[in-house]
Amino acid sequence: MSISPKIEVVLSPDLYKYYQDNSSVVVVVDVLRATTAICTAFANGAQSLIPVASVDEAKEYKAKGYVVAAERDGSVLDFADFGNSPFNFTRDRVTESTIVYSTTNGTRCIDMANNAKQVLVGSFLNVAAIAEAASLNNDNVIVLCAGWKGKFNIEDTLFAGALTNILKSKGYVADDDSAKASEDLWLLAKDNLIDYAKKVSQLKRLKSFGLDDVFEHCFNIDYTNCVPVLSGNTLVLFNEMQKNV
Amino acid sequence: MSISPKIEVVLSPDLYKYYQDNSSVVVVVDVLRATTAICTAFANGAQSLIPVASVDEAKEYKAKGYVVAAERDGSVLDFADFGNSPFNFTRDRVTESTIVYSTTNGTRCIDMANNAKQVLVGSFLNVAAIAEAASLNNDNVIVLCAGWKGKFNIEDTLFAGALTNILKSKGYVADDDSAKASEDLWLLAKDNLIDYAKKVSQLKRLKSFGLDDVFEHCFNIDYTNCVPVLSGNTLVLFNEMQKNV
Repeated sequence: MSISPKIEVVLSPDLYKYYQDNSSVVVVVDVLRATTAICTAFANGAQSLIPVASVDEAKEYKAKGYVVAAERDGSVLDFADFGNSPFNFTRDRVTESTIVYSTTNGTRCIDMANNAKQVLVGSFLNVAAIAEAASLNNDNVIVLCAGWKGKFNIEDTLFAGALTNILKSKGYVADDDSAKASEDLWLLAKDNLIDYAKKVSQLKRLKSFGLDDVFEHCFNIDYTNCVPVLSGNTLVLFNEMQKNV
Repeated sequence: MSISPKIEVVLSPDLYKYYQDNSSVVVVVDVLRATTAICTAFANGAQSLIPVASVDEAKEYKAKGYVVAAERDGSVLDFADFGNSPFNFTRDRVTESTIVYSTTNGTRCIDMANNAKQVLVGSFLNVAAIAEAASLNNDNVIVLCAGWKGKFNIEDTLFAGALTNILKSKGYVADDDSAKASEDLWLLAKDNLIDYAKKVSQLKRLKSFGLDDVFEHCFNIDYTNCVPVLSGNTLVLFNEMQKNV
């Protein structure tokens, strides 16, 4: 008799140490906005994407000729090609390119997970595709919520709940209290997702920088089938990587 | 115009550093079972209670003649008077006594918070009284959930949600995503609290040690008006302390 694989949810990067397990698939999520932007870039034809934590790294890549997305406090950095909004990753800018994306929170989580069996980048934009990819080999799945400066946030938790809900329908078990609570919040929110999500504190921050135009896009469920997966320090398309296995 | 005081929820002791603020009142909660046991002890007439983290400390207090509650993995330690179950704190054992209570998780949280303006010990048994005491001076309130070995747990989060709900009715604001999500889980659970709570992973652990007989007692809302408050390294009754101010 085979043991059912499990789904667990890490509500803050600070708690990842209690879940870390190199045989698991880790799904990193930062709904507002890093992982939504990354999924949008791939949906619009990007070939690969290099997440970087610091402005200096982004600048070094720019000097080498990369297309660089980087902003701080709502302003595009002077050396960058455009800012961090998912809306910036338009087809004409990203198709067949390697994009460098500066995101402190998102990069921290991706780096943190890099000993996992596989690191996938999730958002509402690709949740069904993530469930498919993460469960391909019945590995245990850990959702790593980026949160906000170490704190819990609602939007990443809702994504974790949505993924838990799908994976349970694929035979996964959710014994972990975080996964159970995330799923309950998701079930509470899902029929009215945008309205429910309006309570998240990150929306207030985005508004204060005039960056909230992407809010609804960030909850656009299954907008794409693209699944970004980490290969070295670069995100590539899951399907492309599978072809090379 | 006065600013509304705020309620925030710390879902794991590991995240307390992001909330810590010496001017706030901190409510420590460990529903299954430490803070429920502590509230039960005071409800049954205990005069004071000294929480200790280690078995060695508990043993030292025993040698000095204190009544000591201490167990590990479901067994009463040989030197102790009784174990850690709330049911052990009967009137005949605790009235007018100072009890030493050995709890690793609970003591860690109480110690962690000891620079706060005030540290209160909460559980479902005293949630209304906690709301009253915590809001007495309109101070900001932080709920510190003990969780389980650093992880999030559902039962402490439900308590945090119940307290958030009451404090909002007293004019508090809950801007923090943790407080909002806790309240939503509480509203989802409250009409069927025991049934909802049966999903918590801690119940399985208690059952495996035969310690689950107290489960329903731990969700006995407003069983007592006693509010334990930290004074030095000792918990005393809030009302008694107020009299001495």
